[in-house]
Amino acid sequence: MTLTFTSDHCLDDDVLERRFTLDGIPGILWTPENPPAATPLILLGHPGGLDRMYPRLLGRARHCAASGFATATIELPGAGDRPRSAPAEQARADLRRAIEAAEPVPAEVVDRLVLPLVETAVPEWRAALDALLALPGIEGPVGFSGGIVSVAVRLALVESRIAAALLFAGSFVPRAILDDARHVTIPLLMLLQWDDEGNDRQLALDLFDALGSTEKTLHANTGGHTGVPGFEGDDAGRFFGRHLM
Amino acid sequence: MTLTFTSDHCLDDDVLERRFTLDGIPGILWTPENPPAATPLILLGHPGGLDRMYPRLLGRARHCAASGFATATIELPGAGDRPRSAPAEQARADLRRAIEAAEPVPAEVVDRLVLPLVETAVPEWRAALDALLALPGIEGPVGFSGGIVSVAVRLALVESRIAAALLFAGSFVPRAILDDARHVTIPLLMLLQWDDEGNDRQLALDLFDALGSTEKTLHANTGGHTGVPGFEGDDAGRFFGRHLM
Repeated sequence: MTLTFTSDHCLDDDVLERRFTLDGIPGILWTPENPPAATPLILLGHPGGLDRMYPRLLGRARHCAASGFATATIELPGAGDRPRSAPAEQARADLRRAIEAAEPVPAEVVDRLVLPLVETAVPEWRAALDALLALPGIEGPVGFSGGIVSVAVRLALVESRIAAALLFAGSFVPRAILDDARHVTIPLLMLLQWDDEGNDRQLALDLFDALGSTEKTLHANTGGHTGVPGFEGDDAGRFFGRHLM
Repeated sequence: MTLTFTSDHCLDDDVLERRFTLDGIPGILWTPENPPAATPLILLGHPGGLDRMYPRLLGRARHCAASGFATATIELPGAGDRPRSAPAEQARADLRRAIEAAEPVPAEVVDRLVLPLVETAVPEWRAALDALLALPGIEGPVGFSGGIVSVAVRLALVESRIAAALLFAGSFVPRAILDDARHVTIPLLMLLQWDDEGNDRQLALDLFDALGSTEKTLHANTGGHTGVPGFEGDDAGRFFGRHLM
């Protein structure tokens, strides 16, 4: 796949933001304006919808740039301006219906929603990695940070260039991903918002338990999905500093 | 109660160690040799047995001193050279028997073991605090760090001079302490060793859930009871720095 830059501008705090497309998939690359010779790269995961997520992604990118990391993200399949998938939309509607009825979400709904997304997104992130690591100055090692947690787990399992991952336990996880988790071995930091309304806390704990890595740390904080305390950004920076610098 | 210093010597890295007794209870105070004008104090909790615990306590004290904190600890009731209590020894034997038989530990055994310890230890730590804060240069605010977690929770509830606490979830917790936990409001960091053989993980998670504080963070790491990763010491320093400095 071919990465084509579509715009670039320098943000006021010495971060260079470059938008690109990867065979039509929108993405953003942020680099420190005066990067070290070999800049480690952190892929920023998100729940889909780059425009909607932009302010929070930019905050994370600035934070990483201040510590000498390049960051990059791409749009998820079926999100933002990318074509919708009818089966995924149906699964999303079924999920919403279960949540609104305060019923347990059936495992087959989670499978229908998440597994096709993982199957499509993971090769795209790997292609993005090929293209990004071919750019001058971006050398790795590579980290992955954020959601969707199922994408992160599968990437951590299959993509050997990812040396460490921060997982954000804030979405439904298929059983197949729990099975993947047992075979993951890279150092992990998992964030869990203890009072996240849209997240199954026990499943997040089961996922943490299942992960095969000998170095894994769970940080759980009070508050809802978007209430991650600011100090976790610093902790994340130190985690990636230990494993990527 | 009266604090009497029994020895002092300067450790090689500029930490002053002073042993004391508090009406016969042995204790240790560590201060930076050139402390700031008003030195915050962290009380170092432990499972009992100052001599046995000394190397680990000293490591924590050195780490704290490097960040400008004074630290102090006292022996627990029934531990080290302090007189044994026959009912506590009986409860400890009952606990051991249940664990060796791989049976669930009866709640009444935990109550018999831990509640009298809490009832005796908490007033002693408060008396130690009175005496320590009367010393020149030690001013607070005060933190509590470590186990026994039931002592820490009760202290966090009743001792208003304790502004923040690090809880080490590594021991059995009576139901009465879970009730106490709901009324605790100070900022908390709880450490949990995910594979701690002697610790009930679900109970530790229940305790974290019960704690009433709006700022509470759980750090869970792979490994057994004594396998807390070194980076947690730095995290603890930053936690206390945020709340006591």
